[in-house]
Amino acid sequence: MEQTHKIKKINLICAKGAIEDVYATLILGNGAVMEGIETNIFFTFFGLDAIIKSRMDKLHTAVIGNPALRLPGGLRMPTLLGIIPGMESFTSWMMMGEMAKLDIPPVSEFLDLINAGGGKIYACKIAMDMFKLKKEDLCENVIDILTVGEFYERAGGEDSHIIFT
Amino acid sequence: MEQTHKIKKINLICAKGAIEDVYATLILGNGAVMEGIETNIFFTFFGLDAIIKSRMDKLHTAVIGNPALRLPGGLRMPTLLGIIPGMESFTSWMMMGEMAKLDIPPVSEFLDLINAGGGKIYACKIAMDMFKLKKEDLCENVIDILTVGEFYERAGGEDSHIIFT
Amino acid sequence: MEQTHKIKKINLICAKGAIEDVYATLILGNGAVMEGIETNIFFTFFGLDAIIKSRMDKLHTAVIGNPALRLPGGLRMPTLLGIIPGMESFTSWMMMGEMAKLDIPPVSEFLDLINAGGGKIYACKIAMDMFKLKKEDLCENVIDILTVGEFYERAGGEDSHIIFT
Repeated sequence: MEQTHKIKKINLICAKGAIEDVYATLILGNGAVMEGIETNIFFTFFGLDAIIKSRMDKLHTAVIGNPALRLPGGLRMPTLLGIIPGMESFTSWMMMGEMAKLDIPPVSEFLDLINAGGGKIYACKIAMDMFKLKKEDLCENVIDILTVGEFYERAGGEDSHIIFT
Repeated sequence: MEQTHKIKKINLICAKGAIEDVYATLILGNGAVMEGIETNIFFTFFGLDAIIKSRMDKLHTAVIGNPALRLPGGLRMPTLLGIIPGMESFTSWMMMGEMAKLDIPPVSEFLDLINAGGGKIYACKIAMDMFKLKKEDLCENVIDILTVGEFYERAGGEDSHIIFT
Repeated sequence: MEQTHKIKKINLICAKGAIEDVYATLILGNGAVMEGIETNIFFTFFGLDAIIKSRMDKLHTAVIGNPALRLPGGLRMPTLLGIIPGMESFTSWMMMGEMAKLDIPPVSEFLDLINAGGGKIYACKIAMDMFKLKKEDLCENVIDILTVGEFYERAGGEDSHIIFT
């Protein structure tokens, strides 16, 4: 069945702004581009951080509220530890380091890569308005600001999938 | 391709109960209804809060565990600040205010709107049982309580998409 | 329309490791298997905890960062309470108890069930590398470690859906 109905289009909606949420989106988006699949990424709500020039390469990981987070060595990080000032920055820095070792680029370069491969990057209009953001706050790779209705129009098509990360 | 395979059905699964999660669902649901797309919204786990009469208009935002949350002015909110009692209520109130300015209605009215436009609202049976909830705890707009299997049956169809927010 | 285009395949991506995220995946996966739908589950990022032998039956719930979490009796749990040492273990234990009462099995047994019903369980290669995990760390039910591209190949097909939980 895969032979006759391969995936033709992937539409990602990135609504959260923690490192792990944004990277899940970018890895799925880049994977699709590399498979020759038409790819749209729509950033909304807190996910907008990933396309805001001044913020995109300074994302943080959620040290609190993620009970699956572990310290080096594999022990679960106690919740109490997460509120120590600096812990979030430290964990974020460590996580980015692990990704760099695997040749996963920083957010801005990752978006360049996806864009170069033909992936299209959009911002969500209502979230832009809510956070009082302007087009010039966004990185160059964002080709348009869309309403939800416009997103649905672009997301249609045979063998198309919507993935909300 | 969009011309021949426009999206015909959107099935949203809302499993989280923070303001931002519920509103992502409602905005995507309402956007679909406004595009004339058949729309089903299935509330489950903590997402049930959005259709429980006594809770739906008192949702909170997650001030901790969301490293992308910012204070007015755009500075990141330090994790430590999030544990101050009242901070969560204050941030939630501020966020609802921003949405009201954009004419985004409170949850109960938003569901009325989606319902009036033909969107169908369901609750998840297993989550209702887990949280010991009864039909009468839910708002009027909920038309049925479905098992996961029944949800899949309603979610099928050509050019149908499932979005888990 | 459901008659001619029933759902034929469900592909779940589980990227988070809290009890509620993993169980949302397993309940949707098992529901699909029980409906006779072809089912793939792809565990990635923190979701890997659900298929790591030493961790899968010791998942925790997120007591902080989930403003919809409630104490027995239905009152919202104050954020401050969540940092008390032991609170996360207590809440997790309580939640698992509620699920056991509904005959929802522990993670390892739930995966056995899904596997016995024909559901296929995969791990994500890039996340395995990032967390320095090896095949032998994973439970027996995991049949393969896939790249994102390989996942997309298996996820294709008519009336197939991707759900990112």
